[in-house]
Amino acid sequence: MENFLSVKDVEDIDKLIKLGLKIKNKPLRYKNKGRHKTLVLLFFNPSLRTRLSTQKAGLNLGMSVISMNAAQGWKLEFEEGAIMNADKAEHIKEAAAVISQYADIIGVRTFPSLNDKAKDYEDRVIHNFVQYASVPVISLESAIRHPLQSLADMITIEEYKKTERPKVVLTWAPHPRALPQAVSNSFLEWAKTRPFDLVLTHPQGYELSEQFVEGVKIEYDQKKAFENADFIYAKNWSSYNQYGQILNPAKEWMIDDEKMKLTNEAKFMHCLPVRRNIVVADSVINSKNALCIQQANNRTFAAQAVLKQLLE
Amino acid sequence: MENFLSVKDVEDIDKLIKLGLKIKNKPLRYKNKGRHKTLVLLFFNPSLRTRLSTQKAGLNLGMSVISMNAAQGWKLEFEEGAIMNADKAEHIKEAAAVISQYADIIGVRTFPSLNDKAKDYEDRVIHNFVQYASVPVISLESAIRHPLQSLADMITIEEYKKTERPKVVLTWAPHPRALPQAVSNSFLEWAKTRPFDLVLTHPQGYELSEQFVEGVKIEYDQKKAFENADFIYAKNWSSYNQYGQILNPAKEWMIDDEKMKLTNEAKFMHCLPVRRNIVVADSVINSKNALCIQQANNRTFAAQAVLKQLLE
Amino acid sequence: MENFLSVKDVEDIDKLIKLGLKIKNKPLRYKNKGRHKTLVLLFFNPSLRTRLSTQKAGLNLGMSVISMNAAQGWKLEFEEGAIMNADKAEHIKEAAAVISQYADIIGVRTFPSLNDKAKDYEDRVIHNFVQYASVPVISLESAIRHPLQSLADMITIEEYKKTERPKVVLTWAPHPRALPQAVSNSFLEWAKTRPFDLVLTHPQGYELSEQFVEGVKIEYDQKKAFENADFIYAKNWSSYNQYGQILNPAKEWMIDDEKMKLTNEAKFMHCLPVRRNIVVADSVINSKNALCIQQANNRTFAAQAVLKQLLE
Repeated sequence: MENFLSVKDVEDIDKLIKLGLKIKNKPLRYKNKGRHKTLVLLFFNPSLRTRLSTQKAGLNLGMSVISMNAAQGWKLEFEEGAIMNADKAEHIKEAAAVISQYADIIGVRTFPSLNDKAKDYEDRVIHNFVQYASVPVISLESAIRHPLQSLADMITIEEYKKTERPKVVLTWAPHPRALPQAVSNSFLEWAKTRPFDLVLTHPQGYELSEQFVEGVKIEYDQKKAFENADFIYAKNWSSYNQYGQILNPAKEWMIDDEKMKLTNEAKFMHCLPVRRNIVVADSVINSKNALCIQQANNRTFAAQAVLKQLLE
Repeated sequence: MENFLSVKDVEDIDKLIKLGLKIKNKPLRYKNKGRHKTLVLLFFNPSLRTRLSTQKAGLNLGMSVISMNAAQGWKLEFEEGAIMNADKAEHIKEAAAVISQYADIIGVRTFPSLNDKAKDYEDRVIHNFVQYASVPVISLESAIRHPLQSLADMITIEEYKKTERPKVVLTWAPHPRALPQAVSNSFLEWAKTRPFDLVLTHPQGYELSEQFVEGVKIEYDQKKAFENADFIYAKNWSSYNQYGQILNPAKEWMIDDEKMKLTNEAKFMHCLPVRRNIVVADSVINSKNALCIQQANNRTFAAQAVLKQLLE
Repeated sequence: MENFLSVKDVEDIDKLIKLGLKIKNKPLRYKNKGRHKTLVLLFFNPSLRTRLSTQKAGLNLGMSVISMNAAQGWKLEFEEGAIMNADKAEHIKEAAAVISQYADIIGVRTFPSLNDKAKDYEDRVIHNFVQYASVPVISLESAIRHPLQSLADMITIEEYKKTERPKVVLTWAPHPRALPQAVSNSFLEWAKTRPFDLVLTHPQGYELSEQFVEGVKIEYDQKKAFENADFIYAKNWSSYNQYGQILNPAKEWMIDDEKMKLTNEAKFMHCLPVRRNIVVADSVINSKNALCIQQANNRTFAAQAVLKQLLE
């Protein structure tokens, strides 16, 4: 693996998932693998789970970890040939090359604008880091993907599945804010490669980008989608077509007990943070079928598996 | 010890103080005690001494330490059953459970509102962390207590006392801002358990909460309180009864040479940060009887003693 | 070496430069030198290279490194005898003494006001840290000097020089913002001690302080200055005489190919961050004669050489 931006960077997905589970079983198994290696994590946006789990993953491998908020520095310029006389103090060309002098692996977290679809979907920040860095780059969530989350999700499903071909439903859920499509895009991209009966359900208007939904079964009737599901993965996203908009609050899409009863005693998953009683009812997320905390725990082992492969 | 929120969590106070002094004598004595253990420090409010000394304490025990400002994440919801459609992005139930996945011990710093006495005195943030975390929680100062400071204070008095039963005076002092009662509450709570002749002095109206002053001798005449004192511990706090208010600036309560002359060559203590020439005259804090820097140093060994017990 | 604030703190400059190169050759050569020692880095201003390279340097020496933004604490008072009733919560006397309790070496980053020349040129923040700290202090750039940058620059020139006495030109360059004189002051102070044919060039009005330019050849004609140069070091600074002002945007002072052709195939240096197509044309900084990334890399080894000497 040269970089970790999406599932496409992974040579053997099944092996990576198994490696995550192996590490979970004994987190210090590779505790000298990253000795005298430095992981620099650069945050252009807030983070709780990703920040802590990726640091923890690096530490478990014996790496030194330096976290830095981009706000502790200055704005970066991404335009080729820019005449830099405005508010951007440094070009990505220098920034990425310079950070590469201090880091053996660079992690980057960056959110989309949700204003300019074309720019967001170029995923420019993370791709520019890859282009100008001289060391591997790992996505800590980019404008359109969150691969460390998705890998942790795949590990979690692998851990809790009861059948060889579980029915996995990604369902849109309500939210008061306009959110990125990154987690959902990425979840589909990874889930498509797995032996799942995969169903996507959302209200009309919340269709995701063709590159991610291609080949995925879409069911607009949420209740129908839930029937016999083994895993319900809930997530809000704003509209892709009317880019970044909340079209329809669709409060009736909240995940509640009544809907969960339609499933095959499905496990409930969410990447967190989650708005209780908006996205999901207290009774569902408090139940023993909720796997959110386990998912968060698996973030460490997902990151550790990826870092280990990048170090090799 | 399961958590460290107040003196009540300590089984043997004398033993803990002695452990602090023993560690001070040789800070790396337990340098492998925390090996491969992670300390996550979460700051909802600014901190200098606590941030540095607790990190240092963790490092001296061989722990990995991850500090995080809550502002690097998002606002937390603390209400049971809340419908989370406003500005709080994550419930404490998830946040505390998730951080527990990455930490072996969680430290939390949080200040009071100084607006809502009932809520502040429930000390909800820290208690919610305890409730929903699955690992020990250590208070880095909560709405109403600052136990690591108090333990460092007890260690400092133990170190510098010249008699078996020193006269220890906690005196209110002026300040331009409305400050929490946490340091003073906590100091009394700890000092009451020690073999001190303990006196509390403050202007009328600055009475502290009954739960902390119960059994403590109050003397409204500051000069009388200072007579024959061995330790003068100065601290400002806002009114508890007229909650969070500065009732009376009482500038004449500043600690100066004239007042110190009434004492038995008392040591001067303050938890810092201190406003010079408002709380205390330059001449007093510059004198060799001032112990503020030594107190700050003892913060490391207090934290280290607590962390060691929590690790066991 | 007791502290590292300027070239004057260095006993043997040549030896320090050689040490930097020796460390570069094998960065983990002294990997136990700083074992169980703590480096506290305090940032009053933003930083990318300095923050990362100094942390990396500490880690390479086996030190524990704690970085802290001053904004995570509160404002410091620097006035002797101040009556602290305004916005400053802590005096430098306490802050420096306290941080010394937790650190074996303290690094401090602080920028000038660019309003008050007399105060800025007293370089009060860093000197107050030295005065009140009980451990060595290292400048991570102060109001008027940036010695870690200059040492990295000297290491870089030593590494890339082709003759025993290279012609080194420090040239002013345009910039949309008023910038400190620190990097330029410091560069001259260090370069004067080296076997260079040193030339300073800038537009009329951008004269630097006499204490730094004393003995340095000034050439107001940029093109003439560039003739036969082996190293072109570009940097913007605001006026020293009309303190902190941008007098003349002088856009024609940008470094471009045409000017570089006047040199002896000179290497192009800049401390970064750099405004492309304002300070320097893309074609120059993209060329293989540009050393900016190598300079940034040498920041680690400069800091490591200094830390090693301070630890001894």
